[in-house]
Amino acid sequence: MPKLRVHNVTVSLDGFAAGTDQRMDAPFGDGIDDSLHDWMFAAMKDHADGKQGTDVDFVARGEDNIGATIMGRNMFGPCRGPWENEAWTGWWGDNPPFHHPVFVHTHHTRPSVSLKGGTDFHFTDEPVETVLARAYEAADGKDVRIGGGPATIQQYLRAGLVDELHLAIVPLLVGKGERLLDNLGEGVDGYEVVELVSSPAVTHARLVRRSQAGE
Amino acid sequence: MPKLRVHNVTVSLDGFAAGTDQRMDAPFGDGIDDSLHDWMFAAMKDHADGKQGTDVDFVARGEDNIGATIMGRNMFGPCRGPWENEAWTGWWGDNPPFHHPVFVHTHHTRPSVSLKGGTDFHFTDEPVETVLARAYEAADGKDVRIGGGPATIQQYLRAGLVDELHLAIVPLLVGKGERLLDNLGEGVDGYEVVELVSSPAVTHARLVRRSQAGE
Repeated sequence: MPKLRVHNVTVSLDGFAAGTDQRMDAPFGDGIDDSLHDWMFAAMKDHADGKQGTDVDFVARGEDNIGATIMGRNMFGPCRGPWENEAWTGWWGDNPPFHHPVFVHTHHTRPSVSLKGGTDFHFTDEPVETVLARAYEAADGKDVRIGGGPATIQQYLRAGLVDELHLAIVPLLVGKGERLLDNLGEGVDGYEVVELVSSPAVTHARLVRRSQAGE
Repeated sequence: MPKLRVHNVTVSLDGFAAGTDQRMDAPFGDGIDDSLHDWMFAAMKDHADGKQGTDVDFVARGEDNIGATIMGRNMFGPCRGPWENEAWTGWWGDNPPFHHPVFVHTHHTRPSVSLKGGTDFHFTDEPVETVLARAYEAADGKDVRIGGGPATIQQYLRAGLVDELHLAIVPLLVGKGERLLDNLGEGVDGYEVVELVSSPAVTHARLVRRSQAGE
């Protein structure tokens, strides 16, 4: 059975995945600079260089067997409200690193965009269950990954649709913004923390749905 | 210079140190059972048995050189509002484990209580700076420790009075309650995370005041 997975979501020690006032020149908002994701870029480089280690291993797992991505509009771009300019096709340039269909949750739908390397962005205002069904179909037997941001991940966690979530806690304090593990309601009861391990740079936690904890 | 320290504050992976509706038969509130503090009791037992290890080391550090304790009323007891019964002298029986003066923040002051083993409870509605000054004086050159709960620790963090804070993150999800690292405002800017290390059971993080980070 294909799974819905979340990987490498990085949070500060006080739990924030994004700061306040996300915008063009501060994609993660105020209070969050690049240092939150330093560990990940270092691990990606190490992975590319063929090195091994805890962080590299977690980053590598995130790329494995993914056939489609789901994300919120805030992860796709800094614009809010109606699209002022449909020329915006994401933060990632004309050859995005996905190479598969990407479903973007937005109240303001627009025509799909096909970019180089097999990345198609689809914009949808459908419920999470419907979007996930479309993503599974598009993934053609592979798993589906939620890219972010926090609010989108929370929607899927509340609905009990996430099979596996890997989060990375970095030793920074942010103070305010969007927490990842927040607004989950009774949703938390459906999940179990099955792994907690630290590298020198970051603590990794892995959550799975309870029904799958024994796998 | 004596320091203000916080040790072994245990939080869930989603950051909660206490659940909702704290009361007599659920001192930490709903959603938090003993399992949140299992690691600490195990480490205390190992410490008593002369064993060593990461968790034991952190627990042992918390007991070292403490001459006075500060706590919030919610940590002292389950009652809220005016004291219905001044016979309540804390959760810890007639020989509490402090063996030094303990200052309890409360809007409803009452006469001090002296218990066996040198534990005196003083009840105060004074500002944090005043209470801390009294505690330093009572500690007679030793450090002062804040016992909890989360709201009391936050008051001292916001005021920039805490020199060192050790928190333990356990792999549990609680979903709602009182977060430890919350409501800190600009206070977080004064702190730096200088240590992040995991045992199999728990991740330990150590925060210090920025001016002391180089010590």
